[in-house]
Amino acid sequence: MSTVSPRRSRDVSDLVSRAREGDPRAVARLVTLVESGDPLLPEIAAALAPYAGQAQVIGLTGSPGVGKSTTTNELVRVLRARGARVGVLAVDPSSPFTGGAILGDRVRMQDHATDSGVYIRSMSSRGHLGGLSAATPAAVRVLEGAGCDVVVVETVGVGQAEVDVASLADTCLVLLAPGMGDAIQAVKAGILEIADVFVVNKADRDGADATYRDIQGMIALGEREPGQWRPQVVRAVASRSEGIDGIVEAVDKHRAWLAGSGALTLRRRRRAQVEIEAIVVGRLRARIGSVGDGAELTALSADVVEGRTDPYAAAERLLARIAADR
Amino acid sequence: MSTVSPRRSRDVSDLVSRAREGDPRAVARLVTLVESGDPLLPEIAAALAPYAGQAQVIGLTGSPGVGKSTTTNELVRVLRARGARVGVLAVDPSSPFTGGAILGDRVRMQDHATDSGVYIRSMSSRGHLGGLSAATPAAVRVLEGAGCDVVVVETVGVGQAEVDVASLADTCLVLLAPGMGDAIQAVKAGILEIADVFVVNKADRDGADATYRDIQGMIALGEREPGQWRPQVVRAVASRSEGIDGIVEAVDKHRAWLAGSGALTLRRRRRAQVEIEAIVVGRLRARIGSVGDGAELTALSADVVEGRTDPYAAAERLLARIAADR
Repeated sequence: MSTVSPRRSRDVSDLVSRAREGDPRAVARLVTLVESGDPLLPEIAAALAPYAGQAQVIGLTGSPGVGKSTTTNELVRVLRARGARVGVLAVDPSSPFTGGAILGDRVRMQDHATDSGVYIRSMSSRGHLGGLSAATPAAVRVLEGAGCDVVVVETVGVGQAEVDVASLADTCLVLLAPGMGDAIQAVKAGILEIADVFVVNKADRDGADATYRDIQGMIALGEREPGQWRPQVVRAVASRSEGIDGIVEAVDKHRAWLAGSGALTLRRRRRAQVEIEAIVVGRLRARIGSVGDGAELTALSADVVEGRTDPYAAAERLLARIAADR
Repeated sequence: MSTVSPRRSRDVSDLVSRAREGDPRAVARLVTLVESGDPLLPEIAAALAPYAGQAQVIGLTGSPGVGKSTTTNELVRVLRARGARVGVLAVDPSSPFTGGAILGDRVRMQDHATDSGVYIRSMSSRGHLGGLSAATPAAVRVLEGAGCDVVVVETVGVGQAEVDVASLADTCLVLLAPGMGDAIQAVKAGILEIADVFVVNKADRDGADATYRDIQGMIALGEREPGQWRPQVVRAVASRSEGIDGIVEAVDKHRAWLAGSGALTLRRRRRAQVEIEAIVVGRLRARIGSVGDGAELTALSADVVEGRTDPYAAAERLLARIAADR
């Protein structure tokens, strides 16, 4: 893998051209730059802007152990069989794809390692000022630029940031497994509201019917406007490749609803809005630390610890300084 | 429970006085106000400032299923036996304490439900502009104000925000359980670096020795300056109350090191700094949405979706508007 960092605009446009032609090294390099919050990010984003919105983005989330990676793997198989080019972004720290943090490099999904129509990347938001909310859509845009028809964003369904990222997809799949009060935990974690399609995975296990009924019951209780989407529930045993067509069918149905109702545009605008906000917040956050070369924040922190002031009063002082420093 | 919202300064100082006297309803009310990001938050923070830093703050984190709640429960028991007043904040969406999101009210820890020396609260950051990083320290301050000697902050060890919150404690406990590659997963999730004390829970299970050795091995590989803290590893079977004294001993040892090395002050300043930053970011974020009554952000989002601009260029325009709106 090339370790040369692009330093000029010419290099960025060269990288983007190569990614457009499907060069996996160029794609990998661009995702790395995006993930690390490279200073060239604005240029990369500008170069990719024309290709935005060309992929169907599927979010996939659920508690650790429900079979997210296996299901993603199976989805990729079915989508590839249809001839789609597929990208996978795994922002799940418990995912086997997400070796990045330890290995210093991505781990490719075993089954699709030699398939040139599949890009798989682990994602981490470390070093990216805008966090996951800015890094993930930027990486999606790289994969769109590289010609992916579908991008699957896999996140762990614990942690607000991670749940939020999955919820910003065109279609959001929430995986559950029988037992362990998983359905209830999903509600607690706030992932019920974001699901367009529920997948009861490991549906051959005891308790799968109960989980299925629980979810159907919760959906029945939910209030919906006429014409609004009613979440689908499908059963699967991803480890045995069972029920995957049902998942894809439900996703297709949701996609048709999105297109017909105008909801697709609204969702995508919402996604863009969250991304823009995250970038703005990242920029503003950088300014906070640089007020008075950081001395102001350090002094205020000490004052709070000593009880001389409180964090809200300290924040007001910093805000005044940020305004004055312009 | 009183549902009357304090509307004036006199009400806030009354609430704080009652909390100081140990009235559990006043404590609960203050935590609720803090959690929801109530407009009175700055006043509450100011009233509590003098009592800041009086409690020892213990963070406790780990993957779902490692026994966090059981361990917290046991820690409370041992600390109570010492005569300490204890507060617990559960920001773990998979915690049985964290019924808040479903039940609309906190669920008290069963064993300690009638003990007036224990406050237990689930926490959610919804509605709080500064997120968990601002809501949690603010709630800690309420419990300090209420005379807690120790505050345990339990968070799920998946999700960057949740891990970050635990890492801001005086002492951070990371729980692991044998099997499931948990040790490796901990590293991936970035929770190895934040642990002051590792607890190998469920130590009666197969694989506990291997997990213990793995962790010791990773600690041995870590580079440390002379005088720096070397993470301790203890074994426990929290469900049988075994090994809890060992955990408390390790926490005490770390506490002595913190005090002796000056690290305590540094950690607490860091915690205050993160909190101040989170509040500032929350305020700035509110401004982003209000630029041109929100129309600017909506228009820019549409431009990004249509490929007319990219999110970085859009962010720059918003930043310019935020500056101009002052």
